[in-house]
Amino acid sequence: MTTHKVTLLPSEKEIEVPTGTLISEAIQNADLEIAQPCGGQGRCGRCAVIIDGKGARRRSTIRLSSSDVEAGYALACQAVIEGDVKVTIPEQERVIRRLVTDKSAKKIQLPFPYDPESMQTVRAFHITLPEPTLDDNRDDVSRMETTLSTLGYGSVEIPLPMLRKMGGVLRQSNWAPWILLEIDEGEGQRVRMIDLSSKPIRPIGLAIDIGTTTVTIYLVDLESGEVINQAAEYNNQIAHGEDVISRIIFAGKGEGLNILGQRIRETIHTLLERLQKRTGIELENIHKVTISGNTTMIHLFLKIPPESIRLTPYIPVVNQPFRYLASDLELHVHPLASIDCLPGVASYVGADISAGVLACGLTESEELTLFIDVGTNGETVLGTKDWMVTCACSAGPAFEGAGVVDGMRATQGAIEEVWVHSQTFEPSFRVIGDVAPKGICGSGLISLLAELFVTGVIDRVGNVKLDLDTARVRQGSHGPEYVLAWGEETESGKDIAITKVDIENLMRAKAAIYAGFSVLASSVGLDLSDVQRVLVGGSFGQYINVEKAIQIGLLPDLPWDRFTFLGNTSVLGSYMALLSKSAREQVRQIAERMTYIELSADNEFFNAFTAALFLPHTEINRFPSVAEVWEKQT
Amino acid sequence: MTTHKVTLLPSEKEIEVPTGTLISEAIQNADLEIAQPCGGQGRCGRCAVIIDGKGARRRSTIRLSSSDVEAGYALACQAVIEGDVKVTIPEQERVIRRLVTDKSAKKIQLPFPYDPESMQTVRAFHITLPEPTLDDNRDDVSRMETTLSTLGYGSVEIPLPMLRKMGGVLRQSNWAPWILLEIDEGEGQRVRMIDLSSKPIRPIGLAIDIGTTTVTIYLVDLESGEVINQAAEYNNQIAHGEDVISRIIFAGKGEGLNILGQRIRETIHTLLERLQKRTGIELENIHKVTISGNTTMIHLFLKIPPESIRLTPYIPVVNQPFRYLASDLELHVHPLASIDCLPGVASYVGADISAGVLACGLTESEELTLFIDVGTNGETVLGTKDWMVTCACSAGPAFEGAGVVDGMRATQGAIEEVWVHSQTFEPSFRVIGDVAPKGICGSGLISLLAELFVTGVIDRVGNVKLDLDTARVRQGSHGPEYVLAWGEETESGKDIAITKVDIENLMRAKAAIYAGFSVLASSVGLDLSDVQRVLVGGSFGQYINVEKAIQIGLLPDLPWDRFTFLGNTSVLGSYMALLSKSAREQVRQIAERMTYIELSADNEFFNAFTAALFLPHTEINRFPSVAEVWEKQT
Repeated sequence: MTTHKVTLLPSEKEIEVPTGTLISEAIQNADLEIAQPCGGQGRCGRCAVIIDGKGARRRSTIRLSSSDVEAGYALACQAVIEGDVKVTIPEQERVIRRLVTDKSAKKIQLPFPYDPESMQTVRAFHITLPEPTLDDNRDDVSRMETTLSTLGYGSVEIPLPMLRKMGGVLRQSNWAPWILLEIDEGEGQRVRMIDLSSKPIRPIGLAIDIGTTTVTIYLVDLESGEVINQAAEYNNQIAHGEDVISRIIFAGKGEGLNILGQRIRETIHTLLERLQKRTGIELENIHKVTISGNTTMIHLFLKIPPESIRLTPYIPVVNQPFRYLASDLELHVHPLASIDCLPGVASYVGADISAGVLACGLTESEELTLFIDVGTNGETVLGTKDWMVTCACSAGPAFEGAGVVDGMRATQGAIEEVWVHSQTFEPSFRVIGDVAPKGICGSGLISLLAELFVTGVIDRVGNVKLDLDTARVRQGSHGPEYVLAWGEETESGKDIAITKVDIENLMRAKAAIYAGFSVLASSVGLDLSDVQRVLVGGSFGQYINVEKAIQIGLLPDLPWDRFTFLGNTSVLGSYMALLSKSAREQVRQIAERMTYIELSADNEFFNAFTAALFLPHTEINRFPSVAEVWEKQT
Repeated sequence: MTTHKVTLLPSEKEIEVPTGTLISEAIQNADLEIAQPCGGQGRCGRCAVIIDGKGARRRSTIRLSSSDVEAGYALACQAVIEGDVKVTIPEQERVIRRLVTDKSAKKIQLPFPYDPESMQTVRAFHITLPEPTLDDNRDDVSRMETTLSTLGYGSVEIPLPMLRKMGGVLRQSNWAPWILLEIDEGEGQRVRMIDLSSKPIRPIGLAIDIGTTTVTIYLVDLESGEVINQAAEYNNQIAHGEDVISRIIFAGKGEGLNILGQRIRETIHTLLERLQKRTGIELENIHKVTISGNTTMIHLFLKIPPESIRLTPYIPVVNQPFRYLASDLELHVHPLASIDCLPGVASYVGADISAGVLACGLTESEELTLFIDVGTNGETVLGTKDWMVTCACSAGPAFEGAGVVDGMRATQGAIEEVWVHSQTFEPSFRVIGDVAPKGICGSGLISLLAELFVTGVIDRVGNVKLDLDTARVRQGSHGPEYVLAWGEETESGKDIAITKVDIENLMRAKAAIYAGFSVLASSVGLDLSDVQRVLVGGSFGQYINVEKAIQIGLLPDLPWDRFTFLGNTSVLGSYMALLSKSAREQVRQIAERMTYIELSADNEFFNAFTAALFLPHTEINRFPSVAEVWEKQT
């Protein structure tokens, strides 16, 4: 087999690879990093490298201009090594964080009155065992079992590490040890011993939400129920794909699944070390973990191949994972801590939604409630305490800044809110971090689209009106566009603009989400106007301006006071399930009770989607408040 | 800290150790081996090494003659290093095996009519799952659960490795996989998935008996119930102590527990590799393991510190171990195979006895039955199907050749049966392997003692009659003795003799065992003469000559046809529990039902023991058949 020398700059690492190896593979083999937001499909163009020499052949240049190619650029995921080559990896864009949960660190309220006695899932006890004598020569385990039965626990499972230390601890403690029990192990009075010590033990838990973009953790005192501290961080998997589909594709290649599994552990461990520094609580004193997240994230965390989630008929391996131990899952907490991944409903309605429904209180209300998680998949639940229907629509990542020329995530330098003057069409905007703008994030895009629409810069189909009396509208290299910021005021010195194509992408995204709402409502013979409460989950939701989201037809046209923004309902539900046996049981019931409607082959969805491809909608009478503003304008 | 150079011969390994290190520790630190039958207590004298130089100080020379010391001998476990020293480790006596189960390899009969349908603990199924569609988009696990519920299994536990391969196997097999279930996981219809494949799976099990001396394994086809093959081997732990007490002491020092745990695994893995070669069955296709053995062996196998077994009030950590997985216990079979250590009753009545009671059929009989395992501990059970009492008496290892000058284990060169001429007092004997004799094993000692007694060479107290007209009796260096073999006919060229001290040791051993029988009988108001069946377990038992064992008062004086020798009942019980859920449940009940009588603080036992320190017994009317022979003689 012929091999070639690849020299990687600026690190100057050298690696020999066989003919046909992709540059991205060579980089990974050399233990270096390269961002691959689309998972190596050649779609996103973010893995561009500079090649020196003729040793690499570009399979695709679709994301590169001819001047890029001239300058030596190639996509690492699309360039095949066929000879010796030098590859320069440009410094990746540094992500400056805007992670609200971590930054604000405001005190999380107890989600319900906490009664450890009846609710607690892990409890510490200081017990006394009868000392053995020649007349009472039962074994240590029988002594323990008898004592636990007086506490009402009829059957105890003692893991091997506890059995190994039991004899020593019982005698060191003069037959008065502290023990820690997991007490929601299935039915009946069955409990599991997590720890045993001659010193007091404080039960600590961890609630995790594994988001595609952000991972959030709460460190919880299981005696008081209170959140001791919290932290959030970008999911380290992002380098291998920004959305779930890209990650599923990456997981299917070579060591991909293992790499993604390790990345999420790295993220969690980084957060845990941060909490350990802040609180002084050792990681091995964390005795129970509940995890929420979408179905793909849960599969990747458990290192279960997620391939079938992506392929029709979109079947996950497991919706209700079993409980495993931290030692099985290589999580650096107490090795006997149970890791409880909460149940999901389907491939695209995951545990984050079940947990969200629990946290938002939908199942306790008689009011018709719409619970939505605005994001790539636009998961939606409609129901009352008596019934629930749910669906997920493939909105695509436009609201996360992907598929939009100047789109970006909500980090420093992102334009997050826009106002356009109705006569001059001059914009003003707010930038995260108050710096020179770099691009536009999701809330900024919604805001911009709404402003362009109500000021008449674009028409109801999304066409940019090039005949307006302003230099802001123009024919750009990607077609008609509106310039939001001139180069002189931006970070890069280039203009920031929204193009016709960007607008179409955004309209498809909002149409898909709204069509989902419509299908859910009509599936139960109701109209969206009947909805009494709209609960918006997901941290992105917190930044949406309701008025503007209604104006573009993303959210239904209801009185603003019916909308509530709840933030990260997924981690909140995870926290509730960590605290309380009955909350955990409720999540299970929620996941089982939700009727899932698969939209991918649904004609009604397709019709509703097409109808929603207008601003705000083909049937403008669905949006009376918008009609009023718009008619005034035109 | 001052260190010294120790040079170990013949290997010429050099090692630096601090002042005060024992030679035995230095040898172990250098990864070399030295036999320590007594566990390093300085009792057995078997770890003698030759020291050259003044770098080692003898703490005790109790087991060495002055000529030994002159020749440079020292006990490795009693010699402290205080300067540079050269140490020669003599070649250890090579053990030539006499392991009946492995050698005879006779076909093991099925212990009961085998009905897999109702009994089987691990079963393979070829199942078909409904293929998913857009209308039936349940997850893979739900599909599996539905199919298993049609087989009558309401709840299935799917371990992580199975969940990780499930998606792939289901699709590769076109939704028709083979699965392997453990179906005796606790109550109800709960099962556990052990394996999943697109190819057929054959369920294989393993029954193990971990004896203090010998480890025996049966490889079992769980479809037919038949033993495919079997093997036995000395327990590798022997180098660290011949009896359980020595091993407990060794386990308490430094890495001792871990070393003993590894040694038993080495032994099992050696046997497994032998079976793999013979049968072609890969070890990772072994799906279930049951283990029997005394309480100390089970603790050491599980790596649970056994210290409290040895100390009053003699409490084990666990009598009924939980079920763990092969991966937790580092056993090289299928990592998800459950390892089921059978339950014992007390520190000195272990799972080998519970399993033995199951195998011997005691619990199915109305006849008063005495079940005994003649060995170091003389475990005994008396009972019928309605009740059982049990005890263990510390007989000591005399019958295993220890504590007897020319004693040895039953290996090649051991005198195993003896006849003494009633007029000339000349002996004849049979030697294992038909070679020049090296010493006397347990059955030979019983035989010799009986012959010396009935021919009048010794009196009822065990005194050697030095006035007999034969050169065989003499005053030796250890006191009065009887010479069984003259130096010219022995392997070593030295005389093989039995001394007054040896005889006293043997009489204490037999008295302890017989006293155990007496106490059990009187505890339930019965007499030993009421016993209708005597079942003798343990492979040593197979070689005992009943007549001679009765003559010395080791076994009660009952008609010979009431005695049955069953061989290794422990491995047989383990095999039964492996095959059948109800047999497994019976062992549990047996262990729970047996009433254990602790003899160590029992005055009645002490009286019975003292009374039994005669040949055959103080009350000779308890042994009418012996009285007859003896009176004829004298």
